Amino acid sequence: VAITIDPSELAKDFRLDVRARLTQLDRRLKLVGFLSTTQSPSKTYASYTKAGCDDVGIDFELIEVPKLELEAAIDQANSDPNVHGIIVYYPIFSSEHDRYIKDLVDHRKDIEGLHTYWAKKLYHNDRFVDAARTKKALLPCTPLAIVKLLAKARATLGFNTNDLRPLAGASVTVFNRSEVVGRPLAAMLANDGAEVYSFDVDGVLKFAGDAVEESKITRSAALKVSDIVVTGVPSREFELVSPAEIKAGAICLNFSTLRNFTADIGDRASVFIPRVGPMTVAMALRNTLRLYENYHA
Amino acid sequence: VAITIDPSELAKDFRLDVRARLTQLDRRLKLVGFLSTTQSPSKTYASYTKAGCDDVGIDFELIEVPKLELEAAIDQANSDPNVHGIIVYYPIFSSEHDRYIKDLVDHRKDIEGLHTYWAKKLYHNDRFVDAARTKKALLPCTPLAIVKLLAKARATLGFNTNDLRPLAGASVTVFNRSEVVGRPLAAMLANDGAEVYSFDVDGVLKFAGDAVEESKITRSAALKVSDIVVTGVPSREFELVSPAEIKAGAICLNFSTLRNFTADIGDRASVFIPRVGPMTVAMALRNTLRLYENYHA
Repeated sequence: VAITIDPSELAKDFRLDVRARLTQLDRRLKLVGFLSTTQSPSKTYASYTKAGCDDVGIDFELIEVPKLELEAAIDQANSDPNVHGIIVYYPIFSSEHDRYIKDLVDHRKDIEGLHTYWAKKLYHNDRFVDAARTKKALLPCTPLAIVKLLAKARATLGFNTNDLRPLAGASVTVFNRSEVVGRPLAAMLANDGAEVYSFDVDGVLKFAGDAVEESKITRSAALKVSDIVVTGVPSREFELVSPAEIKAGAICLNFSTLRNFTADIGDRASVFIPRVGPMTVAMALRNTLRLYENYHA
Repeated sequence: VAITIDPSELAKDFRLDVRARLTQLDRRLKLVGFLSTTQSPSKTYASYTKAGCDDVGIDFELIEVPKLELEAAIDQANSDPNVHGIIVYYPIFSSEHDRYIKDLVDHRKDIEGLHTYWAKKLYHNDRFVDAARTKKALLPCTPLAIVKLLAKARATLGFNTNDLRPLAGASVTVFNRSEVVGRPLAAMLANDGAEVYSFDVDGVLKFAGDAVEESKITRSAALKVSDIVVTGVPSREFELVSPAEIKAGAICLNFSTLRNFTADIGDRASVFIPRVGPMTVAMALRNTLRLYENYHA
């Protein structure tokens, strides 16, 4: 029967580390959150951000602002030297308009790593922001949370996860290729050495190293060889991944709000990670510290 | 009965002007187009770009590239000093992924004005790229084409269109608030002094000056007071705008590929502009020249 990893435990470890490093600083950091939507998941995420900030010792200010005043409010936070990090709770407008908003946040304060500046860094596997290669580039919170959870699972199984290419030789299947999670995740796993089959409604792409190519592999063939299976399909139409489909001993992780694995997946998986949320918040706090070190210290 | 304006005539005037200014340069400009889709409208747009370039004397190279190699191809064109302009034919991926591609094109070569750099300029009504305010900012092709066609229509009706705020006192209704046409268009018309009612499935926004606010105005109330009606609804569900709905003497323009006005709209409109296409291409050529003057000359 599979080990289940609770993301809140790993999140706590990361928060402890962030808290310890924050106490070394000569000032408290301030994070501003913008809430322009009445959607309940956004409010929940905001309250988790607040709790995380309280835990590590970051000042958090939640600003509720009508969506048509959001752009001006972001401009103000961008230019306020006392604001070190900005988080905006989406969705607000259409996905294209929201994409525009993401690029309005100064990338040096964009703790979620959603700015195109960071996406370009990731897709070019350019891991530093300075020529001297001392300041690390930011990675988007949810894919980063997944990578850390998978590393934890691999460590539990005895793999060496401190290698430069910790996923060399591993095959991964990811169901989801959104711009916010699935595509950056596939690129990050490939940068770490994995061969990644990325499934979405438009078809299958294979990420390996720097290369991305179209693939004809079927779901069953991909699952049969995958050491790691990641799901993020927010649809009840999705056929749940079952034990019979996966490789024995595979690590299975679901980041969708819906169940994407059958309840008995643990009969064949080695590790099951049912959710990611608390780790996403921990990574946002960690990113806040990194941005401060890179740009404001 | 309304005057009908054929955009190809105005486009010809603009091309003549661009051609004359290009002959003053000490070199020929080169525009590169990337075609990564087999969709027919993109191929058509590419062939129109070619014809326009031939007409004004710009070298045009159409590069057909598999979509997964597009990013590397754009990088190459960005860094090639012999390439002065880049045009990418969309759609290619999902709208969010395409938004990422738009920001990969160096904004100094982005002749369509789709880069977030240009969007920010527009939405902040910042009309220049240099501190000395000698180099004009770029505007996106299709909204710019519409603004020019509306100015032509207004001139035909005897309005002074050379004013700093040529649309002061005018009311406009726009059906479409896409990030590519409707929203930038509403901002441009408001920057020119108009009061703009912007309709889409999410509701109505009113743009006036720098302000944008939610509005409860109904379609019929907006149409009744609008001196200009612009439609761009790519759906057969849209109730066609009819003469009974509009203000007598209104200027009507449709940029959708579908008909959005009833066939008898000219019974009450003063000017009808049934399409925009040729002017979009002319504006892309004009933008190529402007980018060269701003950044490469």
